[in-house]
Amino acid sequence: MSEGEIDFWFSTGSTYTYLAVSRLDKVAARAGVRFNWRPFSVRAIMREQNNIPFANKPIKSQYMWRDIARRAALYGLEARVPVPYPLQEFDLANRLALLGLAEGWGKPYIVASYRRWFVDGQEPGREPNLSASLAEVGQKVTDAVERASRDEVIKRYEAATDEARKLGIFGSPTFVVGGELFWGDDRLDDALSWLRHGSLKR
Amino acid sequence: MSEGEIDFWFSTGSTYTYLAVSRLDKVAARAGVRFNWRPFSVRAIMREQNNIPFANKPIKSQYMWRDIARRAALYGLEARVPVPYPLQEFDLANRLALLGLAEGWGKPYIVASYRRWFVDGQEPGREPNLSASLAEVGQKVTDAVERASRDEVIKRYEAATDEARKLGIFGSPTFVVGGELFWGDDRLDDALSWLRHGSLKR
Repeated sequence: MSEGEIDFWFSTGSTYTYLAVSRLDKVAARAGVRFNWRPFSVRAIMREQNNIPFANKPIKSQYMWRDIARRAALYGLEARVPVPYPLQEFDLANRLALLGLAEGWGKPYIVASYRRWFVDGQEPGREPNLSASLAEVGQKVTDAVERASRDEVIKRYEAATDEARKLGIFGSPTFVVGGELFWGDDRLDDALSWLRHGSLKR
Repeated sequence: MSEGEIDFWFSTGSTYTYLAVSRLDKVAARAGVRFNWRPFSVRAIMREQNNIPFANKPIKSQYMWRDIARRAALYGLEARVPVPYPLQEFDLANRLALLGLAEGWGKPYIVASYRRWFVDGQEPGREPNLSASLAEVGQKVTDAVERASRDEVIKRYEAATDEARKLGIFGSPTFVVGGELFWGDDRLDDALSWLRHGSLKR
């Protein structure tokens, strides 16, 4: 991370991350900030830490969907909640994100796959979302999935998860500014404030 | 709840609730809104729902303290974190809050007991916090604890918890505006916006 940059750690599969990926480019342009998109496996870390926010918690889950719907509207995003959760192809979705970011088609792919999830109810990493979102960024599904399944990508995914673990990250999205962690889409303003002032200001 | 009012459901013992109780009167005056302070047992509900946010989660807990410290500074509040957690006298602290609100000394008592917790590291509901915070609002500890331990107060505490349960409340603080739940000190702006516009606006 260098000056004017925020590390954006996320997993496709996190629900609130929809709000972050879908508005991050606009926020970056408006704030004059660069975000480094860092996919990792929040699922691996949450399992290690016995951190189970929604499974078998119907009341809290119901609130989560409502909260996301209200906040999506605030950001001008569609959200036909609830959507299928948790993802069946969580790791493939995130390895594709990692591959795409390295090859230059990552951001629009991630945003497109989230849009199909939250607007059309199609899970990222599975058909029909997979082919449609990859086609949208000019990628063939068979080739992209083959490349995303190579040892090299798997190792980079594990290394990213290990880096996140060492930083103390336990949830998605997490914004990191000079060693300070800001967890949750709702902490993006705090992260921007920290980058600018080294403290929270309104 | 009537027009211009927000129900403020909380438990003394919730960490983030420090940020809410300590600034709520200022927010009410600035926004021209009345908050109905409603103590309940978030602990009872969280146990029923197997909702364990921090126990045995050192990484997430560490983040929580840091997040509270940063946000306390934003609101001009002291917070010498971490503080003793969880509270040993959780129920007494909340029955005293309920009694005090009925008798007219509740709000300053709650704010004072939270201040001693977060600034001096003294748990609400136990000595020396108990006597000092009660004295600050003109109450004798023996008398107040006796009244807070009567069946009538215990029943009202259970009834409030049941009311919260039926509303779908699962955490503290929760702001309720016309049936819409807003969970967390960081959703206070959302609650105010909902009261004013029936939607989130910035």
